[in-house]
Amino acid sequence: MSFFASRWVPEPDHVSDAEAGLPRGFRAGAAAAAIKQPGVADVGLLVCDAAACVSAARFTRSGVLAAPVLVTRDHARVDGLRVVVANSGNANAATGEPGMQVALGMQAAAAEAAGVDADRVAVASTGVIGVQLDATRVSAGIAQAASALHRGGDLDFTDSIMTTDAFPKRASLNVRLPSGTVRISAQAKGAGMIEPAFATMLCFVQTDAALEPKTADLLLGVCVKRSFDRISVDGQLSTNDTAILMCSGASGVRVAPESEDELRFGEALDALLRQLALMIVRDGEGAKRIGRVVVRGGDQHVAERCARAVANSPLVKTALHGADPNWGRIAQAVGAALRGADPLALDIAIEGIWLCRDGAAVAHDAVALDAAAAGVEIEYEVGLPMSDPAHLAEAEVFFSDLGHEYVTINAEYTT
Amino acid sequence: MSFFASRWVPEPDHVSDAEAGLPRGFRAGAAAAAIKQPGVADVGLLVCDAAACVSAARFTRSGVLAAPVLVTRDHARVDGLRVVVANSGNANAATGEPGMQVALGMQAAAAEAAGVDADRVAVASTGVIGVQLDATRVSAGIAQAASALHRGGDLDFTDSIMTTDAFPKRASLNVRLPSGTVRISAQAKGAGMIEPAFATMLCFVQTDAALEPKTADLLLGVCVKRSFDRISVDGQLSTNDTAILMCSGASGVRVAPESEDELRFGEALDALLRQLALMIVRDGEGAKRIGRVVVRGGDQHVAERCARAVANSPLVKTALHGADPNWGRIAQAVGAALRGADPLALDIAIEGIWLCRDGAAVAHDAVALDAAAAGVEIEYEVGLPMSDPAHLAEAEVFFSDLGHEYVTINAEYTT
Repeated sequence: MSFFASRWVPEPDHVSDAEAGLPRGFRAGAAAAAIKQPGVADVGLLVCDAAACVSAARFTRSGVLAAPVLVTRDHARVDGLRVVVANSGNANAATGEPGMQVALGMQAAAAEAAGVDADRVAVASTGVIGVQLDATRVSAGIAQAASALHRGGDLDFTDSIMTTDAFPKRASLNVRLPSGTVRISAQAKGAGMIEPAFATMLCFVQTDAALEPKTADLLLGVCVKRSFDRISVDGQLSTNDTAILMCSGASGVRVAPESEDELRFGEALDALLRQLALMIVRDGEGAKRIGRVVVRGGDQHVAERCARAVANSPLVKTALHGADPNWGRIAQAVGAALRGADPLALDIAIEGIWLCRDGAAVAHDAVALDAAAAGVEIEYEVGLPMSDPAHLAEAEVFFSDLGHEYVTINAEYTT
Repeated sequence: MSFFASRWVPEPDHVSDAEAGLPRGFRAGAAAAAIKQPGVADVGLLVCDAAACVSAARFTRSGVLAAPVLVTRDHARVDGLRVVVANSGNANAATGEPGMQVALGMQAAAAEAAGVDADRVAVASTGVIGVQLDATRVSAGIAQAASALHRGGDLDFTDSIMTTDAFPKRASLNVRLPSGTVRISAQAKGAGMIEPAFATMLCFVQTDAALEPKTADLLLGVCVKRSFDRISVDGQLSTNDTAILMCSGASGVRVAPESEDELRFGEALDALLRQLALMIVRDGEGAKRIGRVVVRGGDQHVAERCARAVANSPLVKTALHGADPNWGRIAQAVGAALRGADPLALDIAIEGIWLCRDGAAVAHDAVALDAAAAGVEIEYEVGLPMSDPAHLAEAEVFFSDLGHEYVTINAEYTT
């Protein structure tokens, strides 16, 4: 089965699944440092052996930023990162100055282990908020992970960043560009505290293509906007979200700005990140189904607000969980997002079956609707009356359902 | 046990519980019309026998307004209502012009049954959205309810407006005013689709005090803002929310504007609506615990935004459900509400135990904290750094937890 499992992310023709394994120029390793729980990988190290490694990064926009985010953003060269050191089990957030010292210590330890300057090291953490991270355990983990570095280490590295994830999220793709074939690999984590506009997610992407810093930054920015920015598990923005793209250039294939190579590379990165984002939604702490809501009409701001209101509505999410094609809850969510807009001549469809036109119920095939609502991927379409035909605004959000597992995980797990 | 069961709503000295029963001048009745399910009361009628009845009303601000809300708002004298006709099992929302005709028909039938003009009748509906309400059944129910009208009919009337409510929400209070003793009674419903800024709730309040229309409107407005506007079960604004105050004047006690009577009457109404609002939160579709978040600091807008973000966070709500004093989720919710505000020197306390100062964890008594978090009413305090000491902004929101029952009810019940 292809990595591209969702009907919403067609596999590009020039992309194919590779065996697991990092692109040339990268090695990774992991260690069990007893931060998450004894015997389980919870410290990961990822190293680029190319001194000229080019990178780009995106971070959460939360008003409460975790120490590792501050260290990476303010104490590293974000366009020239060569190392990622990550841990799970502790977010090192709301930990004050002691937390900053631990994060800076992680950066220094990883730099020493990899033989690079500290400002080439990104730090990422995920897990419980408000608890001091044990510096001694992390240091021991980093040393151990360093001794395990190898090109097939992406599997262990992926394991080391998981928290409530039910399954690992990674990919290793071969991408045929006009100038040659390159590899892109990625390791992601995320299942809860996932907000539209990023997510409690970490995503590390590596390629052996050679990109200029500007190109890396542009492509990562655009692709994050179309992937991790468009998903919601529970509407909760995290303190720790981080996405990093690193380019070793070790393939010798150069992706020049505004070239056909850039276009094809961007398509592959876009599909990769969208599929990873859908995997996070699918994981969604107990999710059974994924929804995609597409709102058309209004202006971009209004379409966006409505799409997020639907995606974050617990009533819509529980109906999705129960395979209940309850379109009244879509109407309710949109109405709540557009207060004072009454009368609102909404159109609503589920899986292409139109259920509401101009704000009123319309006759439909209830048997076909029930069958469609029982699928694993459900599409909701909303049409808003206020539309400029020349510039039809459109906003999509992917979201998980809300089921018992989410409650069990979050009532019993101290994140 | 007093009606005022919450520590957050002290019983005013001049208020005491009465037996069930409406104030003088009011009668109510109900009927089983097979709208909700056979044999269960689902149509209610409430009539004021005083021709000079004074009233006030508040409605949902949703952009998708149900037909009964439109009829009451646009086709009735909101300051002179004498009749309420209500049904449960069907919201008559997103039902278009046919739905409007059914709501107008309800108004006409209730007017005829009560012997008043149609514009003295308020219509209220609650239940599933997007399904046509059966006009014949409702008419039959109205006729039957009319034949059952009596002063003790508030119990049956309360039953007739329940949907997913686990328990009825009503009160009958004696209120000692300087000018004499009056009665205030109220019947409310609401458990899900409850949003801060109103709720999927109906609340009907009656008194035999004599109020001028302006006084009734002022007091209802202020008290709704401090009660139904301050609660959240699931952050979902309904299409049907309605609150109506009716004053028969049959006690002969006049509540004059800006009098001591007005002050005391207002205090009683405020306590009544706040306690009813807390009952809705407590019901909260499976809720085990209630939270109260109080945010101090910033400006009023910021404090409000943060309080709502905490109250609507599924991570905070599941932690409340699990008796987990996980303050990191409070920090996360506030951070998400105040994007770009980093560094945010937050203070956070749970049940008076300070856990975070200036954005960083502080030492605390973990045993005492666990014990406090196991209570039924949990108070969260958040201090924001941006404060003008002369005008300390403060915002409170009451909210339910998020547990398995909510999922079960909403995944399996078509609202």
